[in-house]
Amino acid sequence: MSRRQRRIRREDRTGGFPQAPFAQPSIPFPPLKVLSDDQVEAIHQASLRVLKETGINFLLPEACRLMHAAGADVENGGEGPRVRFDAGFIDHYVAKAPSSFRMHARNPAHDVEIGGNKMAWVLVASTPNATDIDRGRRTGCYADYADLLRLGQMLNTVHVIGGYPVEPVDLDVPTRHLDAIDAMIRLTDKAIYGYALGRERILDAIEMACIARGIDHEILAREPSILTTVNANSPLQYDKPMLVGILEMAQAGQPVNITPFTLAGAMAPVTVAGALVQQNAEALAGIALAQVVRAGAPVLYGSFTSNVDMKTGSPAFGTPEYAKAVIASGQLARRYGVPLRASNVNASNAADGQAIYESMMSLWACFLGQTNYLKHGLGWIEGGLSVSFEKVILDAEMLQAMAAFLAPLETDDAALAVDAIGQVGPGSHYFQSPHTMERYESAFYVPILSDWRNFETWRDAGSVDATRRANRIWKELLASYEPPALDPGIGEALSAFIARRKAEGGAPPL
Amino acid sequence: MSRRQRRIRREDRTGGFPQAPFAQPSIPFPPLKVLSDDQVEAIHQASLRVLKETGINFLLPEACRLMHAAGADVENGGEGPRVRFDAGFIDHYVAKAPSSFRMHARNPAHDVEIGGNKMAWVLVASTPNATDIDRGRRTGCYADYADLLRLGQMLNTVHVIGGYPVEPVDLDVPTRHLDAIDAMIRLTDKAIYGYALGRERILDAIEMACIARGIDHEILAREPSILTTVNANSPLQYDKPMLVGILEMAQAGQPVNITPFTLAGAMAPVTVAGALVQQNAEALAGIALAQVVRAGAPVLYGSFTSNVDMKTGSPAFGTPEYAKAVIASGQLARRYGVPLRASNVNASNAADGQAIYESMMSLWACFLGQTNYLKHGLGWIEGGLSVSFEKVILDAEMLQAMAAFLAPLETDDAALAVDAIGQVGPGSHYFQSPHTMERYESAFYVPILSDWRNFETWRDAGSVDATRRANRIWKELLASYEPPALDPGIGEALSAFIARRKAEGGAPPL
Repeated sequence: MSRRQRRIRREDRTGGFPQAPFAQPSIPFPPLKVLSDDQVEAIHQASLRVLKETGINFLLPEACRLMHAAGADVENGGEGPRVRFDAGFIDHYVAKAPSSFRMHARNPAHDVEIGGNKMAWVLVASTPNATDIDRGRRTGCYADYADLLRLGQMLNTVHVIGGYPVEPVDLDVPTRHLDAIDAMIRLTDKAIYGYALGRERILDAIEMACIARGIDHEILAREPSILTTVNANSPLQYDKPMLVGILEMAQAGQPVNITPFTLAGAMAPVTVAGALVQQNAEALAGIALAQVVRAGAPVLYGSFTSNVDMKTGSPAFGTPEYAKAVIASGQLARRYGVPLRASNVNASNAADGQAIYESMMSLWACFLGQTNYLKHGLGWIEGGLSVSFEKVILDAEMLQAMAAFLAPLETDDAALAVDAIGQVGPGSHYFQSPHTMERYESAFYVPILSDWRNFETWRDAGSVDATRRANRIWKELLASYEPPALDPGIGEALSAFIARRKAEGGAPPL
Repeated sequence: MSRRQRRIRREDRTGGFPQAPFAQPSIPFPPLKVLSDDQVEAIHQASLRVLKETGINFLLPEACRLMHAAGADVENGGEGPRVRFDAGFIDHYVAKAPSSFRMHARNPAHDVEIGGNKMAWVLVASTPNATDIDRGRRTGCYADYADLLRLGQMLNTVHVIGGYPVEPVDLDVPTRHLDAIDAMIRLTDKAIYGYALGRERILDAIEMACIARGIDHEILAREPSILTTVNANSPLQYDKPMLVGILEMAQAGQPVNITPFTLAGAMAPVTVAGALVQQNAEALAGIALAQVVRAGAPVLYGSFTSNVDMKTGSPAFGTPEYAKAVIASGQLARRYGVPLRASNVNASNAADGQAIYESMMSLWACFLGQTNYLKHGLGWIEGGLSVSFEKVILDAEMLQAMAAFLAPLETDDAALAVDAIGQVGPGSHYFQSPHTMERYESAFYVPILSDWRNFETWRDAGSVDATRRANRIWKELLASYEPPALDPGIGEALSAFIARRKAEGGAPPL
């Protein structure tokens, strides 16, 4: 076992970068509960009342007609926009959602399970700005976008590319999705993502996922290969592009992460319980629609409930309220048998101590609440308005350490070490003991970033703090990046598809 | 309830500093388990084998004779130093230790419960150096010592003064303990600490605790008022001053925190399980001695097990191994019905990102493992070689946020907010809704340090990061410090005692 660990560690270096192998952690503990079973039921029943009495606006007549045909109470003779649901309707359709599914990457070694007690860690997504301590904060561009994908490929703590790690605003809008997904496929070989920004874009994304894996739509429907997020336009509303996203992705059997945007005090009630009621109502409505479209379509129950800072009006993340909402959301998601999405979030304007303690508050909540899809796992700062290159590395360290924490404690006779303790005896030490010498190379967690040298050595080497060490590491990683192998036929098919779609003008504006 | 919270928040300002009131958190969750019940039993049995087959060196004949008289197997006709124990002896004496006790402060509002699911948070202790970002790292002195006590008094996240927050090396050694404890009593009104550094010092500390509270030794024995730590000189050895500490403190009915110094790979086996076996053997031996001295003497089961970095030989803290050891120690401590001591630790050389993520790894483990006495709760960095003034404030923020996380989620009808959700309806917002207006002032956690303003506002205000904000806060706190009230008679009695003991020459060198 220790010899095998050592071998893996040697082999699994990326440009001399020591990291644990690519592996999804499993949470060995029963999920933490912040709600009693009665409280879970109270939130469930309250959200059913909201769905029945107030309902949800679906701003796409096509979606309204589907819901009407399936038996929902849709105003204007089934045209909507207001849709009301009774408990039986919700129960019937939500029960069709699978409790887990496998996301297929173009490299099968990077496939991930979404569900059960497994976690998948996802690179930051959808930030408009990028920052690092050399160049400062700037609007997202393709060069940063590609560099972040390269880091996502190299870091084993990234299991899924879950969106554009920064918005490449220098790419033309009608064809941006083509170039962006092309880069996802070529610069990484992990599971990918498409945005629900209108029918053409999501269909292009689905098509590119097929090309990347060399599969047809029939296989695609059995092998989820691209994921999207659908945010409710909270309170109680889904807009048109999002609903098109549910329709097309569910039809294709591709996973939809349904995440209400319930900031308590702004788009949701000022109480955490009230925000959860609204989140739950919105999520159940979206999940039900996906199941109306295609029974068994993979979905995620998305938790993004946090609160607004009442002093500044800014969203706050990584707060005690956020942590409770994540864990409560896990209790709700498991009640419905649907995998949970939550996020590694913070509201700091820099990759500083605040970013770290808010992230750690988020991460522990996500782990203890058994989050299956950890969005924004690496790099997010500033409430999602920026990705920090240094934070990517800081998060990689935190995630890798958390995974090591989850590994079981061995207590066989050799580990209990009674004989070794007897041999060393009182008042001595273990530095040279055979028990130590046989194990020391792989006995303990090996960090990516932590500097454990003594103060004097650290000071004489320039007093480089964790953020500046992270800066050095991402630059070293980028310098040693090599693109993953790509079947030439797939590369050509991808180029041909993009050329055709560009010639057609790409996608129309929203 | 919300009005009450608001009132408390208004009243409980210290020099304009908004913080949650002084209150011990209770852990509402069942303690986390990293060991199965069988594994706990395996560690217990292995440590009994160590105690029986190898035994412990007690380097004080007086302690050996007590153990001999109580029935332990003591070599050299009861003179020691090697003492061996059978399971029956350990079971018999450890069972006499109380599962909880109350620590009395000179201000009864600052009394703390040690045990059950309660936590007490303790100021950093015993660091040889102090550091802040203005003045850098320097050897501990009385001025820093006093300033740290002042912060400990002002911060409601400090429940106990658990030692010298930095060693005041500019005070003369024979009388340092007199001046240091005098400052603890005058600059704070929280529960205090004395060091087990020879018979005179610990007896002086006990005497000063009586004077501070205006009580005699008989009351003291019923009302623990001063605490000490006894570290095993691992492996498997207790030295003379430590054993004197157990003898005198247990005799006086004062709590002894018995903490083996088991760094895996150095003073303990390189496996976490082996280090826990040794920790457990050492802790049980120390606890048994305290109970031999006085049945029912309050003790703590101390966990300090971490590991040595095999690359540099430096101790590592806040690692995955440390987190597992803390939680496993909680399982062991509860098996014996003894309160748990663990610590908020890290090995960073600065109050940077590493200090924060290692601390958060420690803190979550301490909370989930139900640590009753959280030593080094605020300020510790650099593996305990320094206290950082900025880290004191960063830790205060993290602890206060953790306490807010533990507060229950309310789910009464008003919190579930179904009516408010219906009134606001789809596509609107909650900013002005009556449900929001009634609650917004006290709805959410109010941070000490976090800056949630948007990037532009934060940047235009100087891009001040969390560590620099912490620097500003501790300086503001010190500027507004006022000493707590002290009964003049007590102050005079204290001065008279110190004058007499100084005239007698203080305490001899160890």
